[in-house]
Amino acid sequence: MKILIVNGPNLNLLGTREPEIYGSETLADICSRIDRSASEKDVQVSHFQSCIEGDIVNSVCTAKDDFDGIIINPAAFTHSSVALRDAISACGLPVVEVHISNTHKREGFRHISLTAPVCVGQIMGFGSYGYLMALDALLYCIKHRVA
Amino acid sequence: MKILIVNGPNLNLLGTREPEIYGSETLADICSRIDRSASEKDVQVSHFQSCIEGDIVNSVCTAKDDFDGIIINPAAFTHSSVALRDAISACGLPVVEVHISNTHKREGFRHISLTAPVCVGQIMGFGSYGYLMALDALLYCIKHRVA
Amino acid sequence: MKILIVNGPNLNLLGTREPEIYGSETLADICSRIDRSASEKDVQVSHFQSCIEGDIVNSVCTAKDDFDGIIINPAAFTHSSVALRDAISACGLPVVEVHISNTHKREGFRHISLTAPVCVGQIMGFGSYGYLMALDALLYCIKHRVA
Amino acid sequence: MKILIVNGPNLNLLGTREPEIYGSETLADICSRIDRSASEKDVQVSHFQSCIEGDIVNSVCTAKDDFDGIIINPAAFTHSSVALRDAISACGLPVVEVHISNTHKREGFRHISLTAPVCVGQIMGFGSYGYLMALDALLYCIKHRVA
Amino acid sequence: MKILIVNGPNLNLLGTREPEIYGSETLADICSRIDRSASEKDVQVSHFQSCIEGDIVNSVCTAKDDFDGIIINPAAFTHSSVALRDAISACGLPVVEVHISNTHKREGFRHISLTAPVCVGQIMGFGSYGYLMALDALLYCIKHRVA
Amino acid sequence: MKILIVNGPNLNLLGTREPEIYGSETLADICSRIDRSASEKDVQVSHFQSCIEGDIVNSVCTAKDDFDGIIINPAAFTHSSVALRDAISACGLPVVEVHISNTHKREGFRHISLTAPVCVGQIMGFGSYGYLMALDALLYCIKHRVA
Amino acid sequence: MKILIVNGPNLNLLGTREPEIYGSETLADICSRIDRSASEKDVQVSHFQSCIEGDIVNSVCTAKDDFDGIIINPAAFTHSSVALRDAISACGLPVVEVHISNTHKREGFRHISLTAPVCVGQIMGFGSYGYLMALDALLYCIKHRVA
Amino acid sequence: MKILIVNGPNLNLLGTREPEIYGSETLADICSRIDRSASEKDVQVSHFQSCIEGDIVNSVCTAKDDFDGIIINPAAFTHSSVALRDAISACGLPVVEVHISNTHKREGFRHISLTAPVCVGQIMGFGSYGYLMALDALLYCIKHRVA
Amino acid sequence: MKILIVNGPNLNLLGTREPEIYGSETLADICSRIDRSASEKDVQVSHFQSCIEGDIVNSVCTAKDDFDGIIINPAAFTHSSVALRDAISACGLPVVEVHISNTHKREGFRHISLTAPVCVGQIMGFGSYGYLMALDALLYCIKHRVA
Amino acid sequence: MKILIVNGPNLNLLGTREPEIYGSETLADICSRIDRSASEKDVQVSHFQSCIEGDIVNSVCTAKDDFDGIIINPAAFTHSSVALRDAISACGLPVVEVHISNTHKREGFRHISLTAPVCVGQIMGFGSYGYLMALDALLYCIKHRVA
Amino acid sequence: MKILIVNGPNLNLLGTREPEIYGSETLADICSRIDRSASEKDVQVSHFQSCIEGDIVNSVCTAKDDFDGIIINPAAFTHSSVALRDAISACGLPVVEVHISNTHKREGFRHISLTAPVCVGQIMGFGSYGYLMALDALLYCIKHRVA
Amino acid sequence: MKILIVNGPNLNLLGTREPEIYGSETLADICSRIDRSASEKDVQVSHFQSCIEGDIVNSVCTAKDDFDGIIINPAAFTHSSVALRDAISACGLPVVEVHISNTHKREGFRHISLTAPVCVGQIMGFGSYGYLMALDALLYCIKHRVA
Repeated sequence: MKILIVNGPNLNLLGTREPEIYGSETLADICSRIDRSASEKDVQVSHFQSCIEGDIVNSVCTAKDDFDGIIINPAAFTHSSVALRDAISACGLPVVEVHISNTHKREGFRHISLTAPVCVGQIMGFGSYGYLMALDALLYCIKHRVA
Repeated sequence: MKILIVNGPNLNLLGTREPEIYGSETLADICSRIDRSASEKDVQVSHFQSCIEGDIVNSVCTAKDDFDGIIINPAAFTHSSVALRDAISACGLPVVEVHISNTHKREGFRHISLTAPVCVGQIMGFGSYGYLMALDALLYCIKHRVA
Repeated sequence: MKILIVNGPNLNLLGTREPEIYGSETLADICSRIDRSASEKDVQVSHFQSCIEGDIVNSVCTAKDDFDGIIINPAAFTHSSVALRDAISACGLPVVEVHISNTHKREGFRHISLTAPVCVGQIMGFGSYGYLMALDALLYCIKHRVA
Repeated sequence: MKILIVNGPNLNLLGTREPEIYGSETLADICSRIDRSASEKDVQVSHFQSCIEGDIVNSVCTAKDDFDGIIINPAAFTHSSVALRDAISACGLPVVEVHISNTHKREGFRHISLTAPVCVGQIMGFGSYGYLMALDALLYCIKHRVA
Repeated sequence: MKILIVNGPNLNLLGTREPEIYGSETLADICSRIDRSASEKDVQVSHFQSCIEGDIVNSVCTAKDDFDGIIINPAAFTHSSVALRDAISACGLPVVEVHISNTHKREGFRHISLTAPVCVGQIMGFGSYGYLMALDALLYCIKHRVA
Repeated sequence: MKILIVNGPNLNLLGTREPEIYGSETLADICSRIDRSASEKDVQVSHFQSCIEGDIVNSVCTAKDDFDGIIINPAAFTHSSVALRDAISACGLPVVEVHISNTHKREGFRHISLTAPVCVGQIMGFGSYGYLMALDALLYCIKHRVA
Repeated sequence: MKILIVNGPNLNLLGTREPEIYGSETLADICSRIDRSASEKDVQVSHFQSCIEGDIVNSVCTAKDDFDGIIINPAAFTHSSVALRDAISACGLPVVEVHISNTHKREGFRHISLTAPVCVGQIMGFGSYGYLMALDALLYCIKHRVA
Repeated sequence: MKILIVNGPNLNLLGTREPEIYGSETLADICSRIDRSASEKDVQVSHFQSCIEGDIVNSVCTAKDDFDGIIINPAAFTHSSVALRDAISACGLPVVEVHISNTHKREGFRHISLTAPVCVGQIMGFGSYGYLMALDALLYCIKHRVA
Repeated sequence: MKILIVNGPNLNLLGTREPEIYGSETLADICSRIDRSASEKDVQVSHFQSCIEGDIVNSVCTAKDDFDGIIINPAAFTHSSVALRDAISACGLPVVEVHISNTHKREGFRHISLTAPVCVGQIMGFGSYGYLMALDALLYCIKHRVA
Repeated sequence: MKILIVNGPNLNLLGTREPEIYGSETLADICSRIDRSASEKDVQVSHFQSCIEGDIVNSVCTAKDDFDGIIINPAAFTHSSVALRDAISACGLPVVEVHISNTHKREGFRHISLTAPVCVGQIMGFGSYGYLMALDALLYCIKHRVA
Repeated sequence: MKILIVNGPNLNLLGTREPEIYGSETLADICSRIDRSASEKDVQVSHFQSCIEGDIVNSVCTAKDDFDGIIINPAAFTHSSVALRDAISACGLPVVEVHISNTHKREGFRHISLTAPVCVGQIMGFGSYGYLMALDALLYCIKHRVA
Repeated sequence: MKILIVNGPNLNLLGTREPEIYGSETLADICSRIDRSASEKDVQVSHFQSCIEGDIVNSVCTAKDDFDGIIINPAAFTHSSVALRDAISACGLPVVEVHISNTHKREGFRHISLTAPVCVGQIMGFGSYGYLMALDALLYCIKHRVA
């Protein structure tokens, strides 16, 4: 089984900026942690991060041929990208949305998600541990054909 | 370690009504499943379900002496109960919010959560499996003192 | 045939408070009047009144085994109770909503009904006579399998 | 006693279009059904249908000399006609508003009624049977001088 | 000089309905009063009243060949008729809007006028005397080529 | 094949009023142009224009027996007529909405169309040429059974 | 009979600034014109202009002992001064609101008047002639005890 | 004289939770303090606290036979309970609303009170001292028959 | 101890205008009543009333050198004066807001207070007695250093 | 003559995803169809598709030197891209907006177009045939210098 | 060259109140600093500060005869004064708006400026240094005739 | 000292398009002008322009190692890019926002800035001179450690 992990804009800064919101792990740390968890479950994981909305849209659009499901942290694009919503809706794979922080504790414009209605489900507020939860959840969804 | 699981209004109907939204398991089925998962982790679980907002408020208010954390599916109260928000905010325990369905796919008034901003985090859309994820997440939060 | 009549908060005050809005009959008077009308039609009626949202939710939730339909005057809960909406939606019975006053003549927040979209229909503005109309309407709906 | 029944725009299509919303009876069928019910009660009924807002306004405006009350299904004008609201308010007769469908189950702009606040009451969701209910309600209002 | 006076829906009821809002003069009384005032000023006046929006639109549309200006009391159409706004905007004559009552004292939806932005000016709250003021104002505008 | 062309309020003024918005052709000019285009395609066209909403509603309501499709420029009714929306929705024919001007360049209340959601499609901003485009589009829709 | 004419902020600039909106007469010109009209009618007029909201409030508050009515052009305070609204409401005199321009043709925040609902009526769009109309209207109101 | 003191949800936690918002006194401390103040004034006081909306509604509904007035801190129900508003409106006693914190300093949804419009008056921001102020105010209202 | 009492616009009219809203005492009566109450408590009181927002802002701005606290009835400025809000916020003294009427029973724009969030607390609806309550409350706040 | 055809995000998926909304043709199919139609009219066409907003902005920005007009299907960027709006506004060429689906039948956020107000016109709801219509319309606009 | 510097309400408190928002310089300090900078540029500066909206309006209204441009920090009036907006718009001089703090970091009602749309430009967030920047900018605008 | 100047979408068109809004200088002209001003101050400047949001996000994200501050004209991204807001917030450098035009004079959606709340300050309306002002302001902020 192959899973694509997509991280949105500014997540490349993880661990180096604003640790009071996002924690002190780097994105590389998190990727390694996901990889370890995945390998225990015989799952292959590919990581993709970009600050360019269109690159993320493309990665989601074209994922179907190579992957069985997607975990995405759309970051800022959660609240602004209709294109990403359309890509998730069209991609034909189960997609799980994850956020490191609890966006409901932050500015009002972060309380609404354009992408959540087209994902299977959403996990937020558990720091980087949310990615591991998302991996479990996605595998569960794939196994039980939830989409 | 002791965890309180709180289920809100109409969740007593699980498995018997509207299975296309909430699945076919009964609440008793789900409780058993949580109990099994908890016992593997040496965690004691108490279950509480009520359709009465005030009883749920009371259960959350007074949980601190007996429990280390709370998993709550506030159901309809997510969108209408300021009292429950206040109880979660005041209870002094980490609280994880879980929803069986992805509320963002449903009516507009279900897109806003009064309770999420005072919980540690939120999990939605993974059916009853979300409770098991919530258990993992809560234990993780307690262990790492996230609140 | 058995019908459940549910009356919401403050309706126990009928006839004793604010008669200029709600008329001078007591709830007991109205119940007797409904009972007479029902017995002429060979219909059994049970009455339930509560100011506690959760008790009303429970009465609606569990009505299916004992009743063929529900007449409900949700009173204030019309405008505030998502839980009651969910209970009506899940109960599996035809439900008729009735209001003694014409809520459209009153404060703006009474112009919107959370419960009406999940009921078969709505009757308002005809005083206590509305309950007799609702009984007719409900029997008509049950007979013609409208829901 | 004489009653005016007013039907608004597109109701001439009843029974021939969109039966899943409005049922399969034609307007003529419904009129006959109302006539039979009225004649049993020694009530004379006149029917008026128009797609022209001003004609309906005129029929309501001038009804007082010939009728004792009005039953109106304003259809689309419910949500758009201030002129009809003014006519009902000025006509000096008790007016009962009836809708075949439950407008609260439909598009958001159908949840608000410009006319309901100036009618005695409103009945919706019971199909064509709602007209018979409205006849009963109107007679009750006239007899008990409710307006 | 020739002036067209246009009165909108329900104004045919003036003097016979709701005198507490609109006064006790009939529309015929008001027309006579305007005629006397006009004849003193050597102005010819034509009166048009209709409850049909389209007839009023037509009367405004085609006024240019026969009249030098228009006084209009759009009544309910003030708040609902985009078509009347377009007709006034297109008619190529100075148009003065008059209201018998002060619409700002009434329901919120009467505080906004679709037609006022395309009229020369607006007069409201002075009862039927407003028509005489409007006649003065319109003659002033025509004389001074205000539009 | 027979097509009905419906033009809404004030379009009878085309070419004589506000040419900077609507161009200098008269409605008769446009009708002739449509007729020429239609006759080249062996299509019969009937023209209907009215400033009366109800007449337009009637023309759309009753078109099914005589026509294969409708091209409508609802003009001001686009933004105010629920009755026209209902007529289009109920008429059982493919309907194409056309506007001479680009309504998105004009007042905010012209940015929303009540009728567009129940038409096959919408064409705006191309002046009277839009009618010819609409004819092509409608024939295409009829031929390919798009509705 | 004595009338107070109150002019609000920036009206001291009349005739010297933005003549395309407000015309080329100075406030002194307008006052003279009003005085001439008033003296023909045996009415004494006092003029008051200020850019200070509180001074205008005071002039209105204390007018009752010295005047029989007030004509006010609140200018910018129309849209921002609750204090002026309260003063007009409390002053115990008939007050007529006048605007030189048609405020409905201008920015959205000028479409709502805080003061109009507590005045007898409103006149706008007729340039400085509106003051003469207001004088007529006010005398009419005083004579017929309209308030 | 007998006064009912009603405290809403989570106020049982006073002094034990979030002292930075609500102070360090327990509800029992506050009750004692009120009792001492009341006994100095020869007033009998009954205390009622509940987290259940319906129980509070009932306590207010049925207070008339036993009490001369009510002091209520509706807490979270201030912002969500139409039922409590209706109970206060119907109870036939003067009711004073008190809040320990200044709700205007907190989240936006706490700036609006459903209950305040049907109370005599409102006191907020003075901590537990507000209850003593409310007692004074209520006695004053009863003595001077303010309601 | 010295206290400043500030009264806003139109309060100079108290007792002479609209007694059904504000009671029949004059502002002088109320000041005397406050003075008597203050002198019993050995508190010196200065009174300031103005209809000019800036004078009130100045009185609040410069109070710190001469006073220990402020009681303010901002009247209309409650809802419109950002400058007063800023002055209260900056003045460095505890400020208590008082209103004679219950503003929540009045027009919608009076339900929001710009000044309340920067005051210690708010008292409304108890007529002129509210000033005496405010005096007690302010002394309590000063004594217990609440701000 | 040279025309640029710009297709926005996810349109590369045409024919392979969600055919019930967008039809079964691929983007390549549509391009071929446009090319054939263009070559019959001696028009050269260049195609550009990207999921990257900035690339689309660049293609529009720099089109003036090489093209005579633009046809654009902005897809999701219709509703989110101020940058694209600015590019169209600044590009100095006539631009025609086309949508395959009727966006008014879809989610509310798709009812508003940021780009339409700066295009010549808009075509929607006719599937891929809309591109051919757009080509005709654009040539018509270029020929008649409409922009 | 002569420049008028206008400072709005509460700015007289600069340096003595809330230094965490506005810095520790007094208004006199800032004026001296501006004077020094101006004298280096051979510019004469007049300073005016008031808490009275009308005085500020007057200073702006009458500036044209004595000054070549205005720098204004409207403080609270930025968000509430239509009169100041009108004065700036009418004054016939270039006006530069300056704010000491970044108002976008503060309460929502400070994010909108009534005055900015009628000023040449706006500078905010640079503390008192913003006045020196404004001086440079204004001289630049005067020299290049930007308005 | 090193400063990064970032210019957003369509600013590459400066001087070649819409000079009535943005002036006639090209971006290269402006860069040269900034460079000259910077070199006088011994400041090194790097210029970056892109129409791709993600590229701008990246340039801001990674600026910390190479620069001491950023001047950004986000152009259209001001109003649409949450990602840019997050990048500015996270970048750890003082950022000054500059706009060539006064965005408050333009469409309503340009009145709100997503980026301004996370910048030090904002300068708008002074044409390209704003960049030189921003350079001064940024150096001032860096020197005085304002952020």
